[in-house]
Parts: sequence; C-alpha cells; structure tokens
Amino acid sequence: MSIDTLAGKPVDYSRAFSQAIDRLHAEGRYRVFIDILRNKGHYPSARCFAGHNGPKPITVWCSNDYLAMGQHPKVIAAMEEALHDVGAGSGGTRNIGGNTHYHVDLEGELADLHGKEGALLFTSGYVSNEATLATLAKVLPGCIIYSDELNHASMIAGIRNAGCEKRVFRHNDLAHLEELLAADDPATPKLIAFESVYSMEGDVAPIASICDLADKYNALTYLDEVHAVGMYGPRGGGISERDDVAHRLTIIEGTLGKAFGVMGGYIAADTTIIDVIRSYAPGFIFTTSLSPVLVAGVLASVRHLKSSSAEREGQQAAAARLKAMMTEAGLPVMIGDTHIVPLMVGDPVKAKKISDVLLAEYGIYVQPINYPTVPRGTERLRFTPGPAHSEAMMQELTEALAEIWDRLELRKAA
Amino acid sequence: MSIDTLAGKPVDYSRAFSQAIDRLHAEGRYRVFIDILRNKGHYPSARCFAGHNGPKPITVWCSNDYLAMGQHPKVIAAMEEALHDVGAGSGGTRNIGGNTHYHVDLEGELADLHGKEGALLFTSGYVSNEATLATLAKVLPGCIIYSDELNHASMIAGIRNAGCEKRVFRHNDLAHLEELLAADDPATPKLIAFESVYSMEGDVAPIASICDLADKYNALTYLDEVHAVGMYGPRGGGISERDDVAHRLTIIEGTLGKAFGVMGGYIAADTTIIDVIRSYAPGFIFTTSLSPVLVAGVLASVRHLKSSSAEREGQQAAAARLKAMMTEAGLPVMIGDTHIVPLMVGDPVKAKKISDVLLAEYGIYVQPINYPTVPRGTERLRFTPGPAHSEAMMQELTEALAEIWDRLELRKAA
Repeated sequence: MSIDTLAGKPVDYSRAFSQAIDRLHAEGRYRVFIDILRNKGHYPSARCFAGHNGPKPITVWCSNDYLAMGQHPKVIAAMEEALHDVGAGSGGTRNIGGNTHYHVDLEGELADLHGKEGALLFTSGYVSNEATLATLAKVLPGCIIYSDELNHASMIAGIRNAGCEKRVFRHNDLAHLEELLAADDPATPKLIAFESVYSMEGDVAPIASICDLADKYNALTYLDEVHAVGMYGPRGGGISERDDVAHRLTIIEGTLGKAFGVMGGYIAADTTIIDVIRSYAPGFIFTTSLSPVLVAGVLASVRHLKSSSAEREGQQAAAARLKAMMTEAGLPVMIGDTHIVPLMVGDPVKAKKISDVLLAEYGIYVQPINYPTVPRGTERLRFTPGPAHSEAMMQELTEALAEIWDRLELRKAA
Repeated sequence: MSIDTLAGKPVDYSRAFSQAIDRLHAEGRYRVFIDILRNKGHYPSARCFAGHNGPKPITVWCSNDYLAMGQHPKVIAAMEEALHDVGAGSGGTRNIGGNTHYHVDLEGELADLHGKEGALLFTSGYVSNEATLATLAKVLPGCIIYSDELNHASMIAGIRNAGCEKRVFRHNDLAHLEELLAADDPATPKLIAFESVYSMEGDVAPIASICDLADKYNALTYLDEVHAVGMYGPRGGGISERDDVAHRLTIIEGTLGKAFGVMGGYIAADTTIIDVIRSYAPGFIFTTSLSPVLVAGVLASVRHLKSSSAEREGQQAAAARLKAMMTEAGLPVMIGDTHIVPLMVGDPVKAKKISDVLLAEYGIYVQPINYPTVPRGTERLRFTPGPAHSEAMMQELTEALAEIWDRLELRKAA
C-alpha cells in the first residue's frame, strides 16, 4: 500500500536527514576523516591515503597514543603471544564465556596501580564513564551529581542517562562547587564527577581541595583520569598518584587507549562498588568483553609504565620545548602545566583551513578541534608532543605554523 | 570537618552498595565469572582457572564465537600482519587521528555485505545500537519507536536515551505491531526496531511482513542481526540476505564479536543516514576507534565468510544434531529453526546448580542464563553448537545432562 492512501502529510525522512547534514556544512564543522596508517616502530610517522595519489608520508601531531606505547616492542610481543595462544576475540560477555584469565590479571594490575581493592574493565573509556555514572545514581536513589562544566561527553551522557538531579559547577571553581553542595539537603546522596587533566585545555583539577569538599559535605568522588594515567605519578597512576590523593577518591576511571596505547577503559574502586557496577550496569553486562589480544597488550603496557619513567620524562620535555618554541614564534598557545599543547583559533573554518594547509603543503597532521568537542568560538588546534617527536620535527612544525599564521593573517599571541 | 557537624542523618553509602549486592544473593542470581583461556586451534577446548587447582581442561558450549572464526588461520594471520605494520591501538577517535585505512576498507566491505551504500563501525554492537537509536530519534523530532518486547538491552538503552515515545509490541506479533502503528498519527515519524534472530529463544522475526507494515505506515526499519551475520544468507549477510529483504530495511546492525570472531559493531544504511550518525552520535564521536589489529582480523573474517559456506553448514548440522539428541533424551529443549539450542529450567538456583555440576564433574562449560538477560522464571541453559563440536562431544553433553536431570529431579520435556 502506498503512503498516499493514509491521511495526513507523509514524513519526508530523507529531507530530515539531509537537513541535519546541511546544518553542519553551514556551520563549517562538517567532518572529513583523514585516512591514515601509522608506521610501526617509526611513530609519529604515518601514511595518508584519502585525497592524495597513493600513500603520502606524514607526521602525526594529534595522536592520543601519548607515549607511543602502541608501538612498544613489549606490547606488540604480548599481543602476538596472546593471539597465538587464545585467538582473536573473547567470544562472549564477561559472564557468558568471555572472562579470560588476561581480564582477571589486568583488573588486578589496575587495582594495584591506583591502590584500590578492585578494578573493572569496559570496552572503552566512554562506556566506563557512561555505564558507571548512570548505574551509581540508580543504586543511590535521590542522588545528585555535581559535574564540572568541561566534563567529557561520556560523563555527561552517563549523568543524563542516570536520570538524576545534576548541578554543573564552573570549571575547576571550588567556591562554586561548595555553594552548590551547601545548598542541597545534607541527607541526600551526592557525587562529585570531574577530570584530572582536561584534554582540550590541558589544565589540571585541584583534586585534594575537591576531596576536602567531598569530606565536608559527605559526597562520593568520581575522577576521570583518561588523559593522565600512564603519564603522571611515579608509576603512571595519574595526577591522583602524583598528588598522593588516590586513596581519597571513591572511583578513579581511566582508559587503555591513550597513554597505554591499546583500547578499552576501566574503573578502580573498593570491592563492593566494583561488584555493584559489575552486577547492574547494562553497558558492562550486555557486551562482548575486550579481545584477550588487547588485554594482553595492555597488561604489558601497564607493567612497563609502572617501572619506567623515561617515556613520561620524554613527553614532559617535548611538551615544554614545543610550548617554548610556539611562544617565541608569537603563536597563541594556551599555557597549561600538562603535556597538551592547544593553539587557540576561535573559528571552525579557519581551524580547518590551517589543518588542511599543514597536511597538503607540509605533511603535518593535526586535526582541527571544533564543536561539539569544544564550545563554539573556541575552536583550536591541539598538539600532543611525545617522547618520539624530535627537536627537528618541532622546529618544522613551529615554522610551518608561523608561515601559515602570517599567510592567513591570524591573530598572534597578545 | 566530620559529617557529624552537618544537620540531618548522613548518607551511608556502603550500606546502600551492600544492600544492592545482597538483593542479588537473595534472588540466587549473583554472578561469578568463570576464568578461562581458550586453546587456539583446538576450539571448543579451553582451560579453566578459578576454583580449581591449576588450569583444568574444559569444553566450551556457550561461546558466541559461533563459527570458530576467532581461531581461523586467515584471521590470526591478518591480525599479526596489522600488529607488525601499524601497532596496537588506533591512537584516537575516528575524527582525531584514529581513522585508519583498515577502518575505511572494512566499512566498504560491510556495506557491500548488506547491499547498502555505506556502513559505520562502532566499538561494540551494544554501542552501535545505543548510539544509533538514540541519535536517530533526536534527528527526527516527535519520532515514535516501535520495539519488540524481547529486544536486546542495548536497543532498549538507545530507545530510552533517545527520550522519545516508545511502543512495545508483543514478540514477533504482527497484529499487535499494526494495531500500535495504526493508532498513531500518520504524520509522526516512526521507526520499527527489532532483531532477526532472538539470541535467547533462537527464533526468527518475520522480516518481510514487518517491512510490509513499515511501507503501509511510512515507518523506518532498524534490524539487529547480531546473532545472524556471518551465519545466514549465501554470503553471511544474515537473515535479511537469506530472505532477500535487505534492500527493504532502512538500517541493518551487526556485530564483529560473534560469528566474525573478533570485536566491535556496525550499522549499514544509505549514505545520508550513515553521515548523520557519524556526525551526531556521541557514542561514535567521543571514543577511541577500534584497534586496527581487530579491524584487520574482521576484514579477513568477513571476506572469508562471504565466499565460504562450510562453516555455516557445519553449524546448522551441529545444531540440528544436538537438538535431536536432546529431544530423544527427554530434555526440555526449546525448539526453534536457528543455531541456538536453549534448555528451559525456569529457576535461577537450579540453572546455576546444573551449570556448576557440568563444570566440576564433566568439564563442560555452559553458563546459566538468568535475569536480567532473560525474564525471571524463564532461566535457562543456552548451548551454541558449532562446526567444531564433534558428535562425541554432543553425546557426552547429552548424557551428562540426562544424568543431572535425573539426579536433581528436574522437569523433562512434555
């Protein structure tokens, strides 16, 4: 039967979908994915495919494989061994056939990394945030979540999906957070959710002071350390290890896909909380567990970074050097005390243009960061120098940026 | 400052968490994960760790690596090659450094598998369902989603997170679905969300008839084929390929972690829809992309199953044989026409007991399936025979079950 036989005007689905895409083009934030392959053992060099005749060599400046652990011989060897020992996938959820011995070992290793009783693996950092926050609030009826305004999309999703009350506090603003905590009933369950390193700004939360507020107002704390684990603290336990406050946090969340170089996410907390999330979170229960090949690689990576600080020191040195070069060149680098080096542009079209010229003319790959990853009007380029980026690469990058900044008549640093 | 200085009774978080766990014990559905490693090249044999002195050999009967592709030499070789070519992880989101050439190739391969213009990879099948359904409903204001009552938890999560109107129709009940469709305004956007193979029942949806209703009422269709891709249709395109109705479906969703043997999820649809989900779904945008090692393995697996039907035929033969054996032994096997072989128990404690005895006394591993995976009172054991399960293994399993059924005085088939 044709839709014409029904009363009312039929819905034009194609039009609705096309309009959604048109809006992105109109705002200059339609995304084109660059098609690349990294060259193992030669990071940050890679090959770029799309829009070029054949693979073209490029230097990657925006990877979150911050310490090049995704290329580390120990990680590669562990994955190869697991691949030949047990095969490709886990074959099931954690409960139904997909709980391998690697998973059990890695959870023990991660619990130890953060000084917690237990840990729980998820398929991604996104899922760990979404599933844990949504589930916690459901187990604590009436719970209010206090959320930093710059929290990651995955935390926002978890809080929204929890269906609980939410209070958004201004970024890293302790006075505002306290004002909000004090205004609510002391008998109400409370959870403060925040990050240690904010990945698009490169600044750091005052964790100890937030824990003081949590103590004062009897609130739980949830700290996202995805841009810090592996990179801060004597064993790579993150900013909470560096600042010696890990024991004060209720839950620490991390990723296996950035400094650890592989894929996946986790939380660390006391045994009962781990058991609650394990038992109630749909995003944990109803999904095929991480491939044992990945888990084996992460095990090697976490163990290596617990005892080796060379990668962390190399990263910090590279970040300091690049910031100094950019500052000297008059580029508008956003100053923070972490490994992340953002250059403010403030316009999505210009940010994309700079990125396009860098790739086409200089073989330099850095993705423009636009809405919804950062607020509109704060579009930027975000560089992630690491131990494998040489002085010559930094020189080349800074000179290219200075030339493009002049060519496009962009605003320099004040 | 101590919490005693605050007015009101302080929240006892530990008690709240402990009570949540106590409820599971009281219902007999507290889950203990069995700790195993599969033996590559010898599937379904594996080693079991927890609760035993050293690894104990077992036979796995509940894996979703349905065709043992997670052990296939082509898959292992492709993963090893990628590991040595590009390294462990992708290092970023699809938009920021994590879009490898493998991802682009696999999306082309999956689009072709389903005869669609495009495809989009996600980190899991769970995320593909959640992210796509939630995003679709947001792009179509006022959309109503019609959902089969037995839809998977990930579809339910996506529909709930969409915040749209939902109508639940009785399982595979066309009359009920039509009744619900007819009752709503024809000018309202509509989406029918359902599965092809229901994994805990082993039955199949009347896809063509649901498409007829979608045509009649101008509704979009979303088909979850996670328990069918790789296993049905001449090229493994699922039940929609077998029934020659793939072209009638708006979106087909599948997994890379079951019959394809690795990890991840995807959707296939026309280019505009893929572009909308790619551009708007937080669960796609804000997460590290699948490891290229996994993607390379899936590419080999999908390509192999497009041209080889031996695995599919072996699986169907094994399922038919096991059902016949169980029926003959008087076991309450739930009859369906798919590869899934469920045995109804109807009680969580008994289901766990049977599973425990099988593992401890017979070295047979099958997980009890309880709430929330299936409704309370329909707890069951669920066997997934495949091409690698031999006649002798089936004989051993059936005899063990018959003995336990007698010993525990369980209800036999009517």
